[in-house]
Amino acid sequence: MKARVHVMLKNGVLDPQGEAVRHALGAMGFDKVDGVRQGKVIDLDLADDATEADVTAMCEKLLANTVIESYSIEMQG
Amino acid sequence: MKARVHVMLKNGVLDPQGEAVRHALGAMGFDKVDGVRQGKVIDLDLADDATEADVTAMCEKLLANTVIESYSIEMQG
Repeated sequence: MKARVHVMLKNGVLDPQGEAVRHALGAMGFDKVDGVRQGKVIDLDLADDATEADVTAMCEKLLANTVIESYSIEMQG
Repeated sequence: MKARVHVMLKNGVLDPQGEAVRHALGAMGFDKVDGVRQGKVIDLDLADDATEADVTAMCEKLLANTVIESYSIEMQG
C-alpha cells in the first residue's frame, strides 16, 4: 500500500523558496508566472494493514509542522 | 490557471532525506513504513494563456535537475 502526503506552507505564511523560484523564472523570461508556492511531497511505502489514520498520525507528529504547514493525504491502493 | 509540478529523485538515486524520515518514523514506533521517498511539489499560478509546454520548459530549465530528478505536471483548469 502506498500513500502520498503533500505538505505546504499555510496561506499567509511567507514562502521564500517559492518566491525565489518565481523570481528566477521571471529572470529567465517566463513572464506568465504570477505566483509560486513550494512544498514537500512524501511518498510512503506502507504495510498492507496500514490505514489513513496511521498516516494522519505520522503527519501530526513528524511530517508536518502544523503551526505553519498544512498537509493532505492520498491513499493509493 | 494553475499547475502543480512534482519533482522526485529518480529511482536508484539515493534519497538521504527520505531515509532520515523513514528512520525517524521507525524510532517513533510507526512500524508499518517500508520505505519513504521525499520530493518537491511546486504550485504555479499562471496567466490564462500559459500552456503545459511552458511548464515543461520551466521544469527542464530550472525546476528539476533532470540528471537525477524526474518531474510530472498536472494542469488544473
